[in-house]
Amino acid sequence: MRKVIITDPPKATLADANALARFGVATVHEALGRVGLAGPHFRPIQDGARVAGTAVTVLSWPGDNLMIHAAIEQCHEGDILVVTTTSESSDGMFGELFATALQHRGVRGLVIAAGVRDVAELREMGFPVWSTAVNAQGTVKATGGAVNVPVRIGNVIVNPGDVIVADDDGVMVVPRSDVAEAITASDAREKKEQSTREAFRRGELGLDIYNLRPVLAEAGVTYLAADES
Amino acid sequence: MRKVIITDPPKATLADANALARFGVATVHEALGRVGLAGPHFRPIQDGARVAGTAVTVLSWPGDNLMIHAAIEQCHEGDILVVTTTSESSDGMFGELFATALQHRGVRGLVIAAGVRDVAELREMGFPVWSTAVNAQGTVKATGGAVNVPVRIGNVIVNPGDVIVADDDGVMVVPRSDVAEAITASDAREKKEQSTREAFRRGELGLDIYNLRPVLAEAGVTYLAADES
Amino acid sequence: MRKVIITDPPKATLADANALARFGVATVHEALGRVGLAGPHFRPIQDGARVAGTAVTVLSWPGDNLMIHAAIEQCHEGDILVVTTTSESSDGMFGELFATALQHRGVRGLVIAAGVRDVAELREMGFPVWSTAVNAQGTVKATGGAVNVPVRIGNVIVNPGDVIVADDDGVMVVPRSDVAEAITASDAREKKEQSTREAFRRGELGLDIYNLRPVLAEAGVTYLAADES
Amino acid sequence: MRKVIITDPPKATLADANALARFGVATVHEALGRVGLAGPHFRPIQDGARVAGTAVTVLSWPGDNLMIHAAIEQCHEGDILVVTTTSESSDGMFGELFATALQHRGVRGLVIAAGVRDVAELREMGFPVWSTAVNAQGTVKATGGAVNVPVRIGNVIVNPGDVIVADDDGVMVVPRSDVAEAITASDAREKKEQSTREAFRRGELGLDIYNLRPVLAEAGVTYLAADES
Amino acid sequence: MRKVIITDPPKATLADANALARFGVATVHEALGRVGLAGPHFRPIQDGARVAGTAVTVLSWPGDNLMIHAAIEQCHEGDILVVTTTSESSDGMFGELFATALQHRGVRGLVIAAGVRDVAELREMGFPVWSTAVNAQGTVKATGGAVNVPVRIGNVIVNPGDVIVADDDGVMVVPRSDVAEAITASDAREKKEQSTREAFRRGELGLDIYNLRPVLAEAGVTYLAADES
Amino acid sequence: MRKVIITDPPKATLADANALARFGVATVHEALGRVGLAGPHFRPIQDGARVAGTAVTVLSWPGDNLMIHAAIEQCHEGDILVVTTTSESSDGMFGELFATALQHRGVRGLVIAAGVRDVAELREMGFPVWSTAVNAQGTVKATGGAVNVPVRIGNVIVNPGDVIVADDDGVMVVPRSDVAEAITASDAREKKEQSTREAFRRGELGLDIYNLRPVLAEAGVTYLAADES
Repeated sequence: MRKVIITDPPKATLADANALARFGVATVHEALGRVGLAGPHFRPIQDGARVAGTAVTVLSWPGDNLMIHAAIEQCHEGDILVVTTTSESSDGMFGELFATALQHRGVRGLVIAAGVRDVAELREMGFPVWSTAVNAQGTVKATGGAVNVPVRIGNVIVNPGDVIVADDDGVMVVPRSDVAEAITASDAREKKEQSTREAFRRGELGLDIYNLRPVLAEAGVTYLAADES
Repeated sequence: MRKVIITDPPKATLADANALARFGVATVHEALGRVGLAGPHFRPIQDGARVAGTAVTVLSWPGDNLMIHAAIEQCHEGDILVVTTTSESSDGMFGELFATALQHRGVRGLVIAAGVRDVAELREMGFPVWSTAVNAQGTVKATGGAVNVPVRIGNVIVNPGDVIVADDDGVMVVPRSDVAEAITASDAREKKEQSTREAFRRGELGLDIYNLRPVLAEAGVTYLAADES
Repeated sequence: MRKVIITDPPKATLADANALARFGVATVHEALGRVGLAGPHFRPIQDGARVAGTAVTVLSWPGDNLMIHAAIEQCHEGDILVVTTTSESSDGMFGELFATALQHRGVRGLVIAAGVRDVAELREMGFPVWSTAVNAQGTVKATGGAVNVPVRIGNVIVNPGDVIVADDDGVMVVPRSDVAEAITASDAREKKEQSTREAFRRGELGLDIYNLRPVLAEAGVTYLAADES
Repeated sequence: MRKVIITDPPKATLADANALARFGVATVHEALGRVGLAGPHFRPIQDGARVAGTAVTVLSWPGDNLMIHAAIEQCHEGDILVVTTTSESSDGMFGELFATALQHRGVRGLVIAAGVRDVAELREMGFPVWSTAVNAQGTVKATGGAVNVPVRIGNVIVNPGDVIVADDDGVMVVPRSDVAEAITASDAREKKEQSTREAFRRGELGLDIYNLRPVLAEAGVTYLAADES
Repeated sequence: MRKVIITDPPKATLADANALARFGVATVHEALGRVGLAGPHFRPIQDGARVAGTAVTVLSWPGDNLMIHAAIEQCHEGDILVVTTTSESSDGMFGELFATALQHRGVRGLVIAAGVRDVAELREMGFPVWSTAVNAQGTVKATGGAVNVPVRIGNVIVNPGDVIVADDDGVMVVPRSDVAEAITASDAREKKEQSTREAFRRGELGLDIYNLRPVLAEAGVTYLAADES
Repeated sequence: MRKVIITDPPKATLADANALARFGVATVHEALGRVGLAGPHFRPIQDGARVAGTAVTVLSWPGDNLMIHAAIEQCHEGDILVVTTTSESSDGMFGELFATALQHRGVRGLVIAAGVRDVAELREMGFPVWSTAVNAQGTVKATGGAVNVPVRIGNVIVNPGDVIVADDDGVMVVPRSDVAEAITASDAREKKEQSTREAFRRGELGLDIYNLRPVLAEAGVTYLAADES
């Protein structure tokens, strides 16, 4: 592991991050071709938050939050802190003191492949968190790691400056180079979904809207009355 | 796997489903002799919902929601959609567009042995869901499966037309042939529980109400003061 | 397994338990030197509860709640019931009838290494519960166990009369002999955290407050501008 | 749960079971249309065993092996004992004493959705076992269950008299009514696989043998040289 | 956590450890009243080993094997090294270099609530290991812990000097004060099992040997021919 | 997801792969600075295999092995096939027919983040496999994916042409650009380990060899005789 703190990585713009926040995780994931999800193990500690921001990444040793301290200095308005460990851990590496420091700097939230604590206080502060555990277990500050290097968060790689989108459906990353495409494609998808939603409200069926009856037939699916089966 | 859509399975009546909804999962499960639970992996995405309805069942290939589209056409007032996959999956096979279509048809909720997405929207719509995961991961519409065949949901088999009962304690199935017995037995159990509840409120003990002191003695359990132990 | 019910174990005082409740799990855990947590598998069924009380412990056979009935008689004002099984189980061993009996006796909550049911009712009653599962699966009353013996709850041993502290961050035990130290140390930690919190609000960094820059250097962590990396 | 011991269920013939043993789990599963597997949590305690036999089923309370004793009396030459519990358990319900009794009766093996112990002795005896755990934890003999009723083993329902096939790939059930079809279809599949195997040995490709190049094209998959990508 | 290395804890005798090794885990566990198992997550990396020895205990920070180095100096002929971490970890904290050092000192094996590596070499050396993971992930040597304090290994507490028994069925602890009783009770159990084994070989049934027919009847279990059910 | 088959990715040389095979996973992982492991969920189906080769990567839809067929055509002497799915799956995507085709082409083994079947046959053929499951569950050939794109295998990203090293300790990747460094560093580490091994055989302690006594002291670890504690 390269022990380094990268101080000024290029980032997506906040205007672009804000544009993606409007769509939410499921829409952006679909719009980009079904890629980018961190996976179902990342759960919000609160209901109803939807944020997007630019990633500041942290790679820590398990049971050690030294590098989170180092990362805070690298955080700026509109960032989302993204923390992972070199091997699997559920320790409570993050609590309300860290959140206080991050809120002061305009950071929008935390995504962590480990545990958090002080969840009652975090909810009250309105600092949104997605984590793989809630755990009061404390950590030391002893072993070096890295800040603003590429890190793996569940199923995906996050590079510093990528856009993180997170809501009640989970967490995803949009690579910095794909942000413009993601906004355009999400906008198109949302428009198409609105039209489908209205058709569904009128009682139309997906079988017809998406022309799936031939797909069923080709797949060998047949219809049968119950008394024939 | 038999690739078939059964179009008109016999169903329990909605009056009977409504009667069971009144009791809730724990009571009906006990009344039927402690059978029928899907198991603790099925969790509600909302708090406080309690529903019962007749099962429309779906067997899908993992990562593929083609058969949910086919199933919606088979859904009617008072149904609950019950979805499983041929092998374990946490993909987000279901979201608010499907829920929109189902609400139009009077469907009361979803039980799914896989993931759902758009959970903020589903909560807002008041469409109750019990799932084994929340996950934005999208699916294709390519491989055939079955609708209204017997399916396994966690620990139990659901036949189309059976009654599903679901609340904050989980999900259970009442086979169509046992619904009448379930209502009678649940009613009896509820009355008995009400009497026990009142005794407990007065400070009586289960040891006496259920005559468990002899059971303890027969099991070899003895009483000891702390300073003797 | 020794099948015994200890009737009068010595206990921490309620005044001390009340003092610990004020601090919460994360603070007390840190104050005691990062020990005592039951682990992240114990989750509250409600949001926002924070309680402390003296442990009445129960060791049950899996699928059998006989010993909970025996334990209730041993419960008094200010206790917290602590239940585990001889081998891993997620059965719903506890529901609102038990909670009714416990509330009558002034018991403050339940910690259970198994499942609970009637969670909607328990929330409504305001009886706080931390469990490893929610499950309607019922149990029998057949096999002997023990009450008020030392039990393992996740990662820790609980002796009867120890103080249990539980909140949204999880569950911990403070051994009876350590309660006075825990109060003193938690109070000191809280004061120190308040000072740190204020520094963070002013924008100071943990790197400086905790003097971590030399630690980073000694660990071989270097700073690098992005265009040099 | 119906507490009953069914004494003389109809069974598939041993000749048919023997025929299925020859093919193994993967072949029979495919031949029947990809159904019948208990799932990957059932693992053999030995390498290289491949057996088939008629199911004698047991439904036990967790932590209680009373019904295995009752089931042994119902076992005959060529049977396979199939044990599950009413809720999830990893207790060591079965060991070499039971295996001694079953070998005396000509029983061919054990499939158990729980733990086994004495695995060194079981391997030495040549009594094959597929289980979900290895665990020395002992059980009581106190609570009633059922023998020769339909039971769920992982992902499938086993009826008494069905054929169980088990090998290093796992465990599957062939319903009694499908045994003849399973033999015919497995035989056909094996012949076809032999021909494919020879083609593969000559260096032919599945893309050509199964005519998959058009499938790739239709799915939108394109070929690209590395220096164009 | 108390950071301390206890240098000369009292230990059970090796003669007693040797006596327990003869019986194996399942027998000793039953003989002591079904207590003492570490649980099914501890698996051997080899087949067929059966050892017993006196525990030298290690409590390490996750991702850090400093305290194993400290513990080796405290190890003597006939010991078994018992390692756990302050929070859950699967890192590969132990490999063949450590085993080389331990074999030199006459240590009989390792039980570790974490990962091991070099498993091919460990098998070849004949150094038996029971672990919760196999993992090549390396660790640092930075954070203090403890040696020869009470530690939790899965489901049980191990005190230094207790006897560890381990074989293909898992790992158990016999408290130093219970060793004499464990030997006597295991010997008695083994004799009784030998007699039961012979009865089973003759075809007698557990239903009769243990007088279980009345238990079945009292539990409400009835016999039914298949054509009546 | 980009649906593409890259036909001629640059690869590490076989001579370099062969050099790495000599060291094994634990040594190379340490030599590279403790990076590159796929994680403990990847387990060998055989004992004692140690291989290294150049990665041909496959990204498949869950439950669908179409892209494995496409990948085989891209495989050459000395490759290792590396398969993952777009969402988590334990289906048995690979069996002895595929292995037959790969052996014909000189492929050295398989690493798969999913299930395999025909494990008895694969062991007999001497085709080594590391997988996350053994499962007979079959798959379809319907949905497009990618070959020779970067894929995630557990904790790491594999690029086509990277070197895969796998043995009883697990699976790791060495990026193509790091192979020369990995060989040099592994060689140095092996020499150092040989010297440490000899010191350990003579009874020297890691505390002295690595100069850890000051580390213990600085960490606040103290020595205490048992009768003082």
